[in-house]
Amino acid sequence: MPATRPLARGVAMVGAGMSKFGAFPAKNSRDLFVDAYKSMSASLDKGFDPRQIDAFYLGNFSSDQFEHQAHTAPLLADAVGLTPIPATRVEDACASGGVALRQGVMAIASGMADMVLVGGAEKMTALSTAAVTEALATAADVAFEIPAGFTFPGFYAAIASAYMHRYGMQPAHLMNVAIKNHDNAALNPNAQFGMTIQTWMEGRIAAAVKKGKPAPTWQNIWDFLYDEAGNPMIAWPLRLFDCSPVSDGAAAVLLVAADRAHEFSDHPIHIIGSGQASDRALHDRTELTTLSAARKASSDAYAMAGIRPRDIRIAEVHDCFTIAEVIASEDLGFFAPGEGFKAAEDGVTARNGAKPINTSGGLKAKGHPVGASGVAQAVEVWKQMRGEAGQRQVPGDVPLALTHNVGATGSTCVVHVFERKD
Amino acid sequence: MPATRPLARGVAMVGAGMSKFGAFPAKNSRDLFVDAYKSMSASLDKGFDPRQIDAFYLGNFSSDQFEHQAHTAPLLADAVGLTPIPATRVEDACASGGVALRQGVMAIASGMADMVLVGGAEKMTALSTAAVTEALATAADVAFEIPAGFTFPGFYAAIASAYMHRYGMQPAHLMNVAIKNHDNAALNPNAQFGMTIQTWMEGRIAAAVKKGKPAPTWQNIWDFLYDEAGNPMIAWPLRLFDCSPVSDGAAAVLLVAADRAHEFSDHPIHIIGSGQASDRALHDRTELTTLSAARKASSDAYAMAGIRPRDIRIAEVHDCFTIAEVIASEDLGFFAPGEGFKAAEDGVTARNGAKPINTSGGLKAKGHPVGASGVAQAVEVWKQMRGEAGQRQVPGDVPLALTHNVGATGSTCVVHVFERKD
Repeated sequence: MPATRPLARGVAMVGAGMSKFGAFPAKNSRDLFVDAYKSMSASLDKGFDPRQIDAFYLGNFSSDQFEHQAHTAPLLADAVGLTPIPATRVEDACASGGVALRQGVMAIASGMADMVLVGGAEKMTALSTAAVTEALATAADVAFEIPAGFTFPGFYAAIASAYMHRYGMQPAHLMNVAIKNHDNAALNPNAQFGMTIQTWMEGRIAAAVKKGKPAPTWQNIWDFLYDEAGNPMIAWPLRLFDCSPVSDGAAAVLLVAADRAHEFSDHPIHIIGSGQASDRALHDRTELTTLSAARKASSDAYAMAGIRPRDIRIAEVHDCFTIAEVIASEDLGFFAPGEGFKAAEDGVTARNGAKPINTSGGLKAKGHPVGASGVAQAVEVWKQMRGEAGQRQVPGDVPLALTHNVGATGSTCVVHVFERKD
Repeated sequence: MPATRPLARGVAMVGAGMSKFGAFPAKNSRDLFVDAYKSMSASLDKGFDPRQIDAFYLGNFSSDQFEHQAHTAPLLADAVGLTPIPATRVEDACASGGVALRQGVMAIASGMADMVLVGGAEKMTALSTAAVTEALATAADVAFEIPAGFTFPGFYAAIASAYMHRYGMQPAHLMNVAIKNHDNAALNPNAQFGMTIQTWMEGRIAAAVKKGKPAPTWQNIWDFLYDEAGNPMIAWPLRLFDCSPVSDGAAAVLLVAADRAHEFSDHPIHIIGSGQASDRALHDRTELTTLSAARKASSDAYAMAGIRPRDIRIAEVHDCFTIAEVIASEDLGFFAPGEGFKAAEDGVTARNGAKPINTSGGLKAKGHPVGASGVAQAVEVWKQMRGEAGQRQVPGDVPLALTHNVGATGSTCVVHVFERKD
């Protein structure tokens, strides 16, 4: 089982940064990546010489479709002055960023590189929302699934329906995930939706009053979240606040061989586990309420790291839809099947809970520029593990953390385990 | 300089195969890849159990644009029964296949895999030639170069013009490359254009006669190649026979840790050198008559392998246009700058010459399904090194061979060195 062997050569993160996530009409993925690279560069405790970088991996889903630009990796490398190093784009739909991170780990473990830049970037908002939805649908099995009328909100709605049927969850339970993730994003200056749902609702009311329209009569966020005007239905049972947004953004982390980490960082963050798995397309599966690729990727990552799920202090998981976070929290072994939605309801996954999930705001509220998301998860882990997450810092030490990045409805999943050893 | 360290763990090819290249209206990239996988499976001396495969890398340029299908790696893995292994697509334009091969090497060298399947696939002919040309143009720097009216025939025409100006080459010299590569492809049953230019010309004459039209008066292939009706101008000085075709096809190779190679193969082919480099986009360069990424990738690969250019017996190089083969033969150190076109004229690069290049027929005549090309180069090397290339087998032993795969006009180049040790 080579997948679960300890790494032949240790790998550590010594820098991590990201652009602001959001909709930026004046910026393309190149501009966004330059922002992320500068942010990463500024994060190193002891600085570095960019000429020491041996290779660049870029996670990007489809600049082809979003920007009519392929072969993006050498262009982005050039934009930050790294020509002529090897520059390689990896694509596994919305897991592209996490898979790029894994290639970076592998490049160092193989001895073919000592220092690797891993980036993720996606510029999505130049297209209409309908066109983005169609482009994202190419991550499914187009020949078999798209003719049936599915796009991703529909896929995850089917998953949510099956989960409700099996475990007795109600749609309202999913809103606990959205509320929590907006609460976290309100404390993340890089988040696309840096506000609580309460603030969002108040903004809507104020805007109506300002325009001289009748003010909505929402008394609290639950009124708002169950009003079609406040939180419209997208694909039953999923409403608008169950869905991550369309985003522009980029992220970058700098990896070095662990034995050299202290040349660059006082508090490097070691990557001690990496797991990746694939699955058949959704229409070919027998189970809808769990992603087998997530179970395999995480069990491989735990085995490589030599730890158990209970050892993980915080996790950034792939909440492209609220139901995805619930299922992830079970697939990762944090909660038993059918218990994830209760954990969210009980506050277990809140910042001050026993198992904080998506302290960054997650894809839901931080934003989801798809190729960047897996790398941005590592950026949040970096900040929390080093105690640099500001107002959203979790209490106590974070010795072990995890990232979980999913492509499509789990045809790809990639999981990493991080350790602070000092 | 980690790029030139010997691999921490040796890697060998124990199987290699490909689909037929051509235009196949009834086949998509999934079907083509299944063909390639079956061909690869049949090539192993001792067979293998597919459950031993630890990971899959796919080289694919843009199924997004060509087939409206992204996230192709897990789909193709599933199509050959390999779910749930990690399945990752890598993209570096027309170098995607060679870069996928490099990731496979790295996965084994890192210890994270013992056996890796590397595939390449592209289905291009579903679109019109104009749409394909536009899709390929996304491999350039779209923001700066495409508004100037460039597509790839134009880029390489500019390179050819600069080369002619500097070195005194005439357009006729380039035809020597086309003639040679068609001669080779005529002996390759998988080639898209499995015929000599003489045969092609005779076919054109016969077709005219059959239709009752006046027969063309071409007396020999040089008449044909300098007649606008036989060989139309595409972008001066490049004519139709200077250009590789639009193709459908797939290729696959099976890599294992070198210390296990003899479990699967009596004559494994070891990969002893791997180099990859990036370059700025063409409009940002000071030199047009050499690709700096090719020079760096090959010098790194030679250093890793501990060999010199003169040690290479045969090479498969990236002849997307005839001028590209000429320049490659210089960048790889086989001939001095300005001497490559003379070597082609003198037959040095022919099958029975001192330095055979593109015995497969090359991209020019074997076909160029872009993501597959870099992997198909390794398939040709496999056959020649094992003495299994049939009528196109080069004379004598082939102890060392090389593949050279280029993305765009050299914004990416990846080079591998292969050794037969038994």
